[in-house]
Amino acid sequence: MTTYRTIEWRDEAVRMLDQRLLPHEVKYVDYVDVKGVASAIRDMVIRGAPAIGAAAAYGLALAASQSRAQTSGELLAELDRAGALLRAARPTAVNLSWAVDRVLSRLAAAAAAAAETGAEVGAAAACRLRRLAVQEAQAIAEEDVQTNRQIGLNALPLIPQRATFLHHCNTGSLATVDYGTALGVIRTAHEHQREVFVYVDETRPRLQGARLTAWELQQLGIPFAVIVDGASGYVMRKLGVDLVTVGCDRVARNGDTANKIGTYNLALAARAHGVPFYVVGPTSTIDLSIASGEEIQIEERPSEEVTHVGQEQVTPQGAQVCNPAFDVTPAEYITAIITEAGVAFPPYTTSLPQMVQAAQRK
Amino acid sequence: MTTYRTIEWRDEAVRMLDQRLLPHEVKYVDYVDVKGVASAIRDMVIRGAPAIGAAAAYGLALAASQSRAQTSGELLAELDRAGALLRAARPTAVNLSWAVDRVLSRLAAAAAAAAETGAEVGAAAACRLRRLAVQEAQAIAEEDVQTNRQIGLNALPLIPQRATFLHHCNTGSLATVDYGTALGVIRTAHEHQREVFVYVDETRPRLQGARLTAWELQQLGIPFAVIVDGASGYVMRKLGVDLVTVGCDRVARNGDTANKIGTYNLALAARAHGVPFYVVGPTSTIDLSIASGEEIQIEERPSEEVTHVGQEQVTPQGAQVCNPAFDVTPAEYITAIITEAGVAFPPYTTSLPQMVQAAQRK
Repeated sequence: MTTYRTIEWRDEAVRMLDQRLLPHEVKYVDYVDVKGVASAIRDMVIRGAPAIGAAAAYGLALAASQSRAQTSGELLAELDRAGALLRAARPTAVNLSWAVDRVLSRLAAAAAAAAETGAEVGAAAACRLRRLAVQEAQAIAEEDVQTNRQIGLNALPLIPQRATFLHHCNTGSLATVDYGTALGVIRTAHEHQREVFVYVDETRPRLQGARLTAWELQQLGIPFAVIVDGASGYVMRKLGVDLVTVGCDRVARNGDTANKIGTYNLALAARAHGVPFYVVGPTSTIDLSIASGEEIQIEERPSEEVTHVGQEQVTPQGAQVCNPAFDVTPAEYITAIITEAGVAFPPYTTSLPQMVQAAQRK
Repeated sequence: MTTYRTIEWRDEAVRMLDQRLLPHEVKYVDYVDVKGVASAIRDMVIRGAPAIGAAAAYGLALAASQSRAQTSGELLAELDRAGALLRAARPTAVNLSWAVDRVLSRLAAAAAAAAETGAEVGAAAACRLRRLAVQEAQAIAEEDVQTNRQIGLNALPLIPQRATFLHHCNTGSLATVDYGTALGVIRTAHEHQREVFVYVDETRPRLQGARLTAWELQQLGIPFAVIVDGASGYVMRKLGVDLVTVGCDRVARNGDTANKIGTYNLALAARAHGVPFYVVGPTSTIDLSIASGEEIQIEERPSEEVTHVGQEQVTPQGAQVCNPAFDVTPAEYITAIITEAGVAFPPYTTSLPQMVQAAQRK
């Protein structure tokens, strides 16, 4: 079983498992300020939409803890700047903004309430807000694990007794605080005695499938085979796949889903073979503020991710590269979107707001 | 301009450019016997359907040159064994068998004619067959270059004035004796003042796109950008692609086409975006003896191609891999098949035999 932890609060530091070194080295790094956390997100020491949400919340907790602000107002202004820094680290996944918003609005509400009652003022009020920032970040991290377990249970009725999955990128413990989303569904199926086999897209350019998902599946004792991303159509056609599960970085109100580059090609292959294509993620990934995927900003990442693999350069010197980190899969290709609040089916403009509301009621 | 040569006859040796070292090192290796040539094909020192056809013909020429057979019968029996060795080197591309068959049947016909006239017998007849084997191999290699240039010209009416291509694997000079097939089409368009831009699929697992096609395009001065294979759908959707050109390793009578793994996924993306999808290759790649792609044997290559990139291991120790080297794109996804004898449109069961006949008449 897994003994690693993707991200953890260690008093005045945030400890992260450096995912760039996996599967060959398990190394934890402590980040002691919000700038360090922002760079860890940008450099993909930590990645995966839910995980970077938790990281951002912990980044704010660090900023709050270390603040010398003497009033609530000063503290909130500082945290606003810290939040902007974190939000800018990676643009596509909405969970990052969601977590920043949640911590900031919790603190703003507490500050407003305190101001109204006049119970605490000045330094005492600021001190209380600092503690609250840490508590809220902890809550976000802890809820993530419960959310993921619930997602797995919600998916279970969709999983046949013998289930061959095809999975893209990494959406396991490493992409979350623990347990995983799309990989969590596979894990739940395995824990509930389904006969599971997983074809693992290696997921170029950063090979999160080959490096991270393969590593997690090994530790869980779930049988799998790694394939190159271009082989998914072949595998569906010749070897058979029962369902595809992928994670998500931002889901628009109409169901259009931004996820790791290659997800859209996989959806096209699934459609051609009548294979159900499930998007899996917490409701915090649903962005009701945007009507469609057209409004999602796609991060372009450094050329080196394509020109090099590890230390080795593959392309000739000076080769130009186009390296979008994400693509958008139109809602029409998505069989259902599985969340902690239930399974959303089309039309998503109706079902997704229901999921978000149901999650907020809890 | 290119000054390299993929494969060349050097008296009693076959000189090949070691493609495994490109684009970082240009190194030629001389092979002095048929076993060496077979291993060079198997280990992918040389690859690309037309190139391995020429390599096999040269392998037979080496075997003939070095034979100590005292009669035509002995020599033909030896070459039959050499042909079997070459055929077994890689199973999917038909050009290999095609070239072996062509050399052997040319020699068998000459031997039969000589026997009939009684002009030469014994050692003299065997000696003449040896020279003929070398001549036939040379002819195959020389014709390949002319074939490719004609393919490019035949494709030209299909290419718009401003043409953004998406190209998979490598089908350039390096995949042939010279000039290239699908990349030759791009090259012809460029030479005929079309405004060409090429998105280059990196083509996992061996990265022939990133390594070889990028290198060739650089040398030709054709602008391009390398993308990961999973990005083709995104590129079509967001950036725009006018046409896809791919090579082929075996085309069945109905048009089903075996080509480098990832081709089928690319065809699905092209279909979803209404992008013309052209298969490009010499008529020697058309195998009229098989009714459909179902009959094509797909080579499974070593796991190390997926677990490692260069010297670096990416997957965890012991990870299972599924590594088909090719896939089959059903004919229904193929807009046209471009050959040296003309452009074949559906229904291919009619048009492909016409192409093969037209090529044989020349």
